[in-house]
Amino acid sequence: MTKNMNIGLLGFGTVGTGVLQIIQNHQDKLKHQLGCSVTVKKILVSNLHKQRSVDVNQEQLTTSAENILNDDEIDVIVEVMGGIDEARRYIRHALENGKHVITANKDLMALHGSELLQLANKQGCDLFYEASVAGGIPILRTLVEGLASDRITKMMGIVNGTTNYILTKMSKEGRVYNEVLKEAQALGYAEADPTSDVEGLDAARKIAILGTLGFSMNLDLDDVSVKGISAITSEDLSYGDQLGYTMKLVGIANRSGDKVEVSVQPTLVPHDHPLSSVDDEFNAVYVYGEAVGETMYYGAGAGQLPTATAVVSDLVEVLKNKRLGVNGNSVVIPQFDKKLKTDDDIFSKFFMRIHAKDVPGTFSALTSLFDKHGVSLEKILQVPLNDGKLAEIILVTHAVSKKNYETVLTKLNDTDVVVDVKSSYRVEGE
Amino acid sequence: MTKNMNIGLLGFGTVGTGVLQIIQNHQDKLKHQLGCSVTVKKILVSNLHKQRSVDVNQEQLTTSAENILNDDEIDVIVEVMGGIDEARRYIRHALENGKHVITANKDLMALHGSELLQLANKQGCDLFYEASVAGGIPILRTLVEGLASDRITKMMGIVNGTTNYILTKMSKEGRVYNEVLKEAQALGYAEADPTSDVEGLDAARKIAILGTLGFSMNLDLDDVSVKGISAITSEDLSYGDQLGYTMKLVGIANRSGDKVEVSVQPTLVPHDHPLSSVDDEFNAVYVYGEAVGETMYYGAGAGQLPTATAVVSDLVEVLKNKRLGVNGNSVVIPQFDKKLKTDDDIFSKFFMRIHAKDVPGTFSALTSLFDKHGVSLEKILQVPLNDGKLAEIILVTHAVSKKNYETVLTKLNDTDVVVDVKSSYRVEGE
Repeated sequence: MTKNMNIGLLGFGTVGTGVLQIIQNHQDKLKHQLGCSVTVKKILVSNLHKQRSVDVNQEQLTTSAENILNDDEIDVIVEVMGGIDEARRYIRHALENGKHVITANKDLMALHGSELLQLANKQGCDLFYEASVAGGIPILRTLVEGLASDRITKMMGIVNGTTNYILTKMSKEGRVYNEVLKEAQALGYAEADPTSDVEGLDAARKIAILGTLGFSMNLDLDDVSVKGISAITSEDLSYGDQLGYTMKLVGIANRSGDKVEVSVQPTLVPHDHPLSSVDDEFNAVYVYGEAVGETMYYGAGAGQLPTATAVVSDLVEVLKNKRLGVNGNSVVIPQFDKKLKTDDDIFSKFFMRIHAKDVPGTFSALTSLFDKHGVSLEKILQVPLNDGKLAEIILVTHAVSKKNYETVLTKLNDTDVVVDVKSSYRVEGE
Repeated sequence: MTKNMNIGLLGFGTVGTGVLQIIQNHQDKLKHQLGCSVTVKKILVSNLHKQRSVDVNQEQLTTSAENILNDDEIDVIVEVMGGIDEARRYIRHALENGKHVITANKDLMALHGSELLQLANKQGCDLFYEASVAGGIPILRTLVEGLASDRITKMMGIVNGTTNYILTKMSKEGRVYNEVLKEAQALGYAEADPTSDVEGLDAARKIAILGTLGFSMNLDLDDVSVKGISAITSEDLSYGDQLGYTMKLVGIANRSGDKVEVSVQPTLVPHDHPLSSVDDEFNAVYVYGEAVGETMYYGAGAGQLPTATAVVSDLVEVLKNKRLGVNGNSVVIPQFDKKLKTDDDIFSKFFMRIHAKDVPGTFSALTSLFDKHGVSLEKILQVPLNDGKLAEIILVTHAVSKKNYETVLTKLNDTDVVVDVKSSYRVEGE
């Protein structure tokens, strides 16, 4: 039996450094679990002479990916460089050379996961990507193994730490979006260009990956309907709170019969729902299974060591498989053909805030419009606005089809009494 | 390759029925995952003629365990009969006959887990027991695989649904213990003899199993210090709440250096701790890893289908291993020798409620006693009692050694000013 396993690391930024650190610090535990030592043999870097925060031998570093991908002594490639095209090429190259691959790259897996998994399967190689969704939470493993015998019907994920941090500060401290975003940028919780986070794209990639695994159906990024948090106002949060809800950016994947919906949007969840108390930069994935009922998995969604932990746990699995000679058996080939719901099939409660003329007849005009399209109301809150001529009206519907709800939404502006539809959110988790 | 796997079921109560139901209903999914069908060939029952709520063939039933354990066509034994001695004998018999075993039996695993796992290892058999802790939460798998590369330093588990239901009702509705217990019994959430639940024994078994896996150290039930919830009063809950805490029955396993503590006791956790919002009969296990940081796993802790889901997920793993020819490799042999902390090594905050004479000098007498034993105070609340002669004093200490705290606790009754130490609880999670 081999006495040592050699790893090649593509990328040596925050996560790559964390991976090296964990492998160095946990050598005893790894040896106990695997019966062999683990060495990071080569590391792909862009700058050989940069100062590093971790103990690394100059000979380990290389600027040539081929130097790693064609090294016969390297068993496993860990891709933590990020980006799409180059990473994809390197991973294909590694798989074609019969190497097992671990990646933390959600962008890549959301866009090209299906292609890469098929290649891995053909080559008899493992391809694991636990770190790509909710870094510190072993959620992919849970979906595939822990809930293997159940039928999952719904997943709701707070899978972006930046937006959860922003929404938590806005909700708890009554502050406005732009101010909190700036603070988050200063603290390093949000990037200089925050678009991918705040417009929901990052969360969309993750919910596509979760949906694919949870529903055993190839779901692409294009299948996800996406709305971000940048338009949320303090009024929305405070009225939501009054009516018993907390605002979260939630990735939703649900299935009824053989049809699924995957979406990301600001969502009001009841105060007593487990997702409601997931605060700050934490992530959580709520999973509903027909047999198991409600479960939730909570932890750090990003960060150097949580992400690196997920990568090294994948590594342990690859190495165990290798020792047993069973690599390449873990790739899950989807069981079902993709069938997406249309707006007719998507049922949900909705929250709406409108400004209307504060005159007799307003309410009956509104309710007859809702009635006409089969949208019934569960909660109503009306308060006069400062000038007395307008009323602020907050409505929460019963569960209705998205199609009917959106019809009402567009028609509201045509009525005489409605001045403005200020906001509209999905309500989930009741 | 085999076209079918035969299972033998020992026990056909609630969980056994659930297992059969899931196997019957999810035949397609199992076939997709395993490439073969799964059949429950024989079921051990005590009464052949009892009416069953599930579709079962009379020929499947038997009252003879040997009939199942010696059947060469049966690959896997699922033990869901409960109890200790008979279950242990049957499982040993099954392993000796080279059959893989899945059990939901926490009592058995807490008492004889080490012996049975060693036998499984020797026989090259799988022995899985995910359902034994927190039924619907795949926590054992997470500790062994998901956090494989991390060093876990602390686990806190709400792992008994009955006591969590009782404490939730007491906290939220201001009701007293006896009344809520009776209601829980009427609803079937608590047993006629509730001792094992309310005195913390059930939770102790589970934290022993969690500690053994999380710390890779053989921990027995005897190593767990146990205190139940039957003495908790409404006053404790309400003062705890005022000071920012929620009362939960928490199984604690923590490690510092190479020493560990395992205990179960009513514990005050801060309102913003993830465990604080785990309500009603739900379970959750909070895990702190050096690299991954805080994580939590939440779900149903018991119930027919959640528990059966865990059993069938184990079954899927056994069958996958069998297909790959790698059974018996999953048994985790503890890496470390057992070293238990003494009260000197256990550090925690504590909450104390005392009745003292409402006279000048009381406070200085108290504080000098605390000072003398190195116990410093973080929070103090004093309110006059109805008769005006006594004061109710609530104290929360800084983190101090359990030994020093308990010294103070015993000496308090010797002072002139203290009339009674009403209650004392551990405070964790800050």
